Amino acid sequence: MNKKAVVLLSGGLDSATVLALALKQGYECFTLSFDYGQRHSSELAASEVLSKHMGASAHKVVKLDLRTIGGSALTDTDIEVPTHESEGIPVTYVPARNTVFLSIALGWAEVLEASDLFIGVNAVDYSGYPDCRPEFISAFESMANLATKAGVEGQPFKIHTPLIDLTKAQIIQQGVDAGVDYAMTVSCYAANTAGEACGECDSCRLRKQGFADADLLDSTRYIA
Amino acid sequence: MNKKAVVLLSGGLDSATVLALALKQGYECFTLSFDYGQRHSSELAASEVLSKHMGASAHKVVKLDLRTIGGSALTDTDIEVPTHESEGIPVTYVPARNTVFLSIALGWAEVLEASDLFIGVNAVDYSGYPDCRPEFISAFESMANLATKAGVEGQPFKIHTPLIDLTKAQIIQQGVDAGVDYAMTVSCYAANTAGEACGECDSCRLRKQGFADADLLDSTRYIA
Repeated sequence: MNKKAVVLLSGGLDSATVLALALKQGYECFTLSFDYGQRHSSELAASEVLSKHMGASAHKVVKLDLRTIGGSALTDTDIEVPTHESEGIPVTYVPARNTVFLSIALGWAEVLEASDLFIGVNAVDYSGYPDCRPEFISAFESMANLATKAGVEGQPFKIHTPLIDLTKAQIIQQGVDAGVDYAMTVSCYAANTAGEACGECDSCRLRKQGFADADLLDSTRYIA
Repeated sequence: MNKKAVVLLSGGLDSATVLALALKQGYECFTLSFDYGQRHSSELAASEVLSKHMGASAHKVVKLDLRTIGGSALTDTDIEVPTHESEGIPVTYVPARNTVFLSIALGWAEVLEASDLFIGVNAVDYSGYPDCRPEFISAFESMANLATKAGVEGQPFKIHTPLIDLTKAQIIQQGVDAGVDYAMTVSCYAANTAGEACGECDSCRLRKQGFADADLLDSTRYIA
C-alpha cells in the first residue's frame, strides 16, 4: 500500500485538523500551500510552521497569482471583505479556487507517486462555496483518474475529505483529540501580520461559534 | 446568447488555430497564457503578439511556478528533452498540466461571465498525454459545472476542443483557411529566445510532418 499523501494546508483551523487526521491514519504527509495573492498572508506563514511542527515530510508553497483574474474580496482589493452574513454565494468566494488547488496537488501527487489527497472542505459550515460540496469532490476524483499518467496506468487517486460532514465544533473536538494546537492556526480573512484575527469576518465568526459550541477554550489570538 | 469565450493560447501552432476558429465562430475572445517555468518562454512572447494581432479583447498571463512540483522535462532542468520517440507517456508530460490550466481558465471565465472555454487538445497527434483525450475533457466539463457559482446557478460551461479529431495536417489546413500566420507561432520545446525552433524535438517533428502532409510551405523559423 502506498501511504504517501498530499495534504492541502492553508494554515487555518480546518486544514490543520486534516493534517492531524491524515498523520493519525499513518500517511506520510506532504503539505502544499498556495501563495495566491490572498490578503491574509499570515495564514501562509502559519502553514509552514504547522507542517514542520506536526511532522509532515515536506512542505511546498506554490506561487500562483490569482489576482490576475480577480473576482474575489480575498484577492481583489477593490472588493470589501464583509463583516455580516449575506444571502447566496459570498464575495469572499475565489472563482474555481479548490479546483485550481486540487489540480496542482494532483500534479505533485503524480510526481511523488502518491495516490491520496486530503482537503479540508466542509459542507456544513461551508459558507456557500460550491466547490466544498461532496458532488464536486466526487466529480474531481473521476476527472483526476482520466487526467493523469498514474490514473490511466491503474493507480487511482482518492480525494479524502475527513471534515465534510462535521460541524465546526466537531472539527475542533477531533483536532483537539489529535493534538492540534489551534493557537498556531490562522482562519481570519483580515488577520494582521502577527497572525492576530479580526474577530468579525465570516471566518472568525464561524470559528468563535465552533469553540463555543464545542465548549472548549478559544485559543485564537484576536487583535486587541 | 453569451458570446464571450476564454481561449487557452500557448503561442504554439494548435492554440493559434483554436483562437482563429473561435473568432470565426463569432466569439469575443479572452486569451490566457501561463508563465509556468517552461523552458521555451519564446512561446509565451508569441502568445501576446498573436492575441493582439488576431483581435482578442484581452490577454492575461498567469504566473504559476510548476517547477516547485517538478516531474517534467519541460520544467525540470535535470530531465533532458528527448529528440527521439519513446514508448508510452513521454518525459515532456507536465503532471496535470491541462487540468491546472483549464481550472484557472474556468476561474477567469466565471469572473468574465463567459460560458465557453476553448483548448487546443488533440487526440490524434497527442504525444501520449492522458489529459488530451475526449474522456478527460468531458469529465472536466462535468466537474466544472459542480465547482462553480455560474455552473450551480444554471449557466453551464462548455469546453470546446475544435482540434480534437484532426490530424496535424488538417489543423494547419484549417488555420491557413482562417488566416493564421504560422510564422508567428512557436511550437518547439527548445526554441531560442528569438523564437527559432530546434527542428528535432517531438513537437518540431510533429509540426514538420504536418506541413509536409498538408502539402503547405513550412514557414517555421529554424535555428540555422
